Amino acid sequence: MSLRVGIVGAGLSGALMATMLARRGHRVSVYERRPDPRAVEAEGGRSINLALSHRGLRALDGVGLGESVLATTVPMRGRLMHDLSGRTALQPYGTEEHQVIHSVSRAGLNRMLVDAAADAGADLCFGARCEDVDFERAEVLFETGEGVRERADHDLIVGADGAFSVVRGLMQRRPGFDYQQSYLTHGYKELTLPPTPSGDFAMDSGALHIWPRGGYMMIALPNADRSYTCTLFMPLLGENSFAALEPPMAETAAVGDAASPAPAEAIEGFFRRSFPDALPLFPDLVEQYRENPVGYLVTVRCSPWVHEGSAVLIGDAAHAVVPFYGQGMNASFEDCRLLDEHLASVTRPGAELAEALTAFAEPRRVDTDALADLAVYNYTVMRDRVASRTFLLGRALGRLAHRALPGVFLPLYTMVTFTSMPYAEAVERWARQQRRVRHGVLALILIALILIIRGLS
Amino acid sequence: MSLRVGIVGAGLSGALMATMLARRGHRVSVYERRPDPRAVEAEGGRSINLALSHRGLRALDGVGLGESVLATTVPMRGRLMHDLSGRTALQPYGTEEHQVIHSVSRAGLNRMLVDAAADAGADLCFGARCEDVDFERAEVLFETGEGVRERADHDLIVGADGAFSVVRGLMQRRPGFDYQQSYLTHGYKELTLPPTPSGDFAMDSGALHIWPRGGYMMIALPNADRSYTCTLFMPLLGENSFAALEPPMAETAAVGDAASPAPAEAIEGFFRRSFPDALPLFPDLVEQYRENPVGYLVTVRCSPWVHEGSAVLIGDAAHAVVPFYGQGMNASFEDCRLLDEHLASVTRPGAELAEALTAFAEPRRVDTDALADLAVYNYTVMRDRVASRTFLLGRALGRLAHRALPGVFLPLYTMVTFTSMPYAEAVERWARQQRRVRHGVLALILIALILIIRGLS
Repeated sequence: MSLRVGIVGAGLSGALMATMLARRGHRVSVYERRPDPRAVEAEGGRSINLALSHRGLRALDGVGLGESVLATTVPMRGRLMHDLSGRTALQPYGTEEHQVIHSVSRAGLNRMLVDAAADAGADLCFGARCEDVDFERAEVLFETGEGVRERADHDLIVGADGAFSVVRGLMQRRPGFDYQQSYLTHGYKELTLPPTPSGDFAMDSGALHIWPRGGYMMIALPNADRSYTCTLFMPLLGENSFAALEPPMAETAAVGDAASPAPAEAIEGFFRRSFPDALPLFPDLVEQYRENPVGYLVTVRCSPWVHEGSAVLIGDAAHAVVPFYGQGMNASFEDCRLLDEHLASVTRPGAELAEALTAFAEPRRVDTDALADLAVYNYTVMRDRVASRTFLLGRALGRLAHRALPGVFLPLYTMVTFTSMPYAEAVERWARQQRRVRHGVLALILIALILIIRGLS
Repeated sequence: MSLRVGIVGAGLSGALMATMLARRGHRVSVYERRPDPRAVEAEGGRSINLALSHRGLRALDGVGLGESVLATTVPMRGRLMHDLSGRTALQPYGTEEHQVIHSVSRAGLNRMLVDAAADAGADLCFGARCEDVDFERAEVLFETGEGVRERADHDLIVGADGAFSVVRGLMQRRPGFDYQQSYLTHGYKELTLPPTPSGDFAMDSGALHIWPRGGYMMIALPNADRSYTCTLFMPLLGENSFAALEPPMAETAAVGDAASPAPAEAIEGFFRRSFPDALPLFPDLVEQYRENPVGYLVTVRCSPWVHEGSAVLIGDAAHAVVPFYGQGMNASFEDCRLLDEHLASVTRPGAELAEALTAFAEPRRVDTDALADLAVYNYTVMRDRVASRTFLLGRALGRLAHRALPGVFLPLYTMVTFTSMPYAEAVERWARQQRRVRHGVLALILIALILIIRGLS
C-alpha cells in the first residue's frame, strides 16, 4: 500500500520532498501557486544564490542528485574579509581541505528538483493556489484560475509553502497552536556585480566575500556565470540605514515608500566610504540600488508542526530563519531526509502515520529553534566580530584545540556546516567545549604560577 | 475640528473607547460582528464574570460610569482558600480595609458601556463583520449581511476586536510586524453554582473562592443573582486533566472531540476527591460538565500596535493575557484611558496623530508585556503556592514590611491591583523590594551572630 500525499509548495523543500516520497512509491501531488519554474524566468525578490553544505548535500545524495547539483555550483573555501582600505584576509571555513561550501543558484536548483520530482512520478500542478485545507479529510482546496476551484483529498498534507505558508496560517486558527514571527530591525538589498569586460570573475571566486562594517555589512557569493550576487544588510532606520540613503520622507511612511528615489550622490558616497574596493566593480550601482527592493528578515517558529496525523509542516513553513548561518536551505533539505526516514515503514494512514509525523517533528523543532538563534547570533559575528582581534584569537585557539584533539574539539561552524549533528546538540557541545577551554586556560595559568613560585624560592 | 474614528469591536474596550472619544466630540463609528448585546442574551463560551479593580474603575470614573457599574457588582475582600477537608482560610487582597475587588458580569457591563457609547453620540453598527481594512485610507470594509458589503473611511481605525482580532491579522501580513501567540497546556471549563433553595449565596459571597490543588485548581466568583461562576483550570492532557475525565479516545483527537461524553462517575469521583465541599452545592454537575466547552488559555503579544498613523490596537487585540491576575479587562480599560489622554490635543489626522499613537503604544507595550508574564506566573501562585507555608510566610513578611514602611514597601498584588503604577514599574519595584528584604534579613542574622559571639566571649 502507498500513501496519497498532497504537498503544498514546489519550492526547494516541496520539490525535494515530492521526489523522495514518489521514489518510495507513494502517490504524490504537488500544488504550487507559481508557474512551472522550468518554463519561466526566476521570480524576483528572493535570494538569487544560496550556500549548499553537508546537510543539504546529504539529502540530495539520498535521491542521487548530489553530483549533478554540485556540477552547477561554485565552491567557496572561506570568508574573504575586505577592510576599509581594500585589503583582504581569508578565514577558511573548514578544518580540512575538502570542507568547502557551494554557491548554488536557487532558480537552477529548483528547476533540477522539479525535474526530479516529475521523473519520480509526482503529479505537479503549477498555477494552483492553495486556498483552504480540510484537515479532517486531508483535503486541499486550490484555485487553478480566476474562480476555478478544485478539491483533492489525500492521506497526508505536507505544508512546504514557505515563510508565509498558507497551510500554517490555517493551522494557526486552531486553538493550541503556538506561533511567533519576529523581524530584525535590519533589511537587505541584492545587487549584481557583473563579470569583468573580459568575462572573468571580478574578484577571487573561491570565497564568500564579506565587508564587515560593525552595524552593517555587504556579502558577495559567486555565480556560475562569473557574476556575483552581493547582498547589503543594514538597519532599516537610523544612521547608516536604508532610510538614511533616501530623501527625507514623511515620518510615518515605511522604508521604500519615498516618493522620489535615493539620490545618486548618497548611494555612491555611502559605497565610497563603506565599500571603496567594491564601488568601481559596479557599472550600474545607482540604477540597481533604486530598482531592487529592500527585503525584510524574519524568524518564524511554531508548534506543533503536525496537525492530528493528517498534516505536517516542513522547511520555511515550519521554521523560517534569517540567512546568516547559510543553513536555511540545508535545514529544509534535512527536514525532507528526516521526514522521509520516519515515513519509510508507514504504508497507510492512521495511528502509525500520526506517530511517525510526531516522532519526526517534536525533536526536529528543538533543533531548528536552536538554528534560529544561531542564525540571528551569526549576523553580529559576520558584520562585526569577524573583524575583531578577540574573535580571531578565539577562532585560532579553537582550530588549535581541534588539531590537538580532533575527536574532542570541533569548531561550532564545523559542526553546523560540515556534519549532520543535530543543531541543538552542536550548540550544547560548543558550550561544553567553551567551558573546557576556559578551565584549561585557568589550569595552565595555575601551573605557570606554581612553576614561577618554585623558581623564585 | 474632530477626528473620524472607526472602532472595530463593541466589546468591553471598544465600547469604552467609543464612549471616551465620542465625549471628546470626535465622530465615532463602531463595527461589531455580533448583534446588539442590549437586544439579545449573552453569548456563551466567554467568562461570565470578571474582577474589576482600581485601573478599570479609574477609566470608568473618567466617563462618569464608576458608581453605576459598582452598584451592579459584588465586592470580594480576599481569596478564600478551600482545603481538601473543606476548611477555609481568608487571605485579604489589600493592606487597607477599602481595598477590595469587584465581581462584575461581563454581559451586564458590556450593555452599560454600549448604552454609554450610544448616549455619547457614537454610531453603533451591529452585525457588521470587519472583512478588510485599507490602512492607507483608514477605511473599513465590512459585511452587514450575506453578500452585503459596505465601506467607510475614517482618519483613525481602532482595532478593539479581541484576542483573535481581524484588524491585527491584517496588520500581521505587513513586513516588520512581530507577533506571538502562545497557549498554556492547561484549559478551563466554566460551571454555574446556583443559589441555595432559599435563594441565598451557597458560600461566603465576600470573597473569591479558590480550591488550590497543585497541578490544577477551581475558583468561584459571586454573581449579583447570588449564584457563583466556578472555573475549573486543569491540564488538557495527562493525569488530572480534562482528557483524563473523558472516555478513551483516538490518540490524535483534540480534547473535547471524544465521541461519547465523560462518564458521570469519572466527573463526580474527581470532584469528590478534589473539591469535596463544593460537590454537594452543584445540583447538575454532570450535565454542566458535559455541556460546557473546554476553553483554551492564550497569551498574545505583538509589535507595533500602530500602523502608519492610521490604525492602533487596544485591549485583547493588542495584548491578550491569561486571566490569573484578574487584569485583562482592567488593562484594556487602562488602554482606553491612556489612548484617550494621548489623543486629547489631537484634532486632525497627520503627523501629530501618528506621534500621539506611538507615544501611547510604545511604553504601554512594555507594561502589558510585563503583565502577560505576571499573569502566567500567577497561575502557579494560585493553584499551588497560595497553599504553601513559604508563600504564606513571604506574604506575611511583605504585609509586615508594608505596615512598618508604608511608603516604601508595597506588596506586588497591591501595586498591580490597587494603583495605576505602570505594570513594568511595579514588577521592577517588587524585585528591588525583594532584594532589600533579603539584605535586611542577612543584616539581622549578622547582628544576631555578633551579639551571640559577644555574649559568648
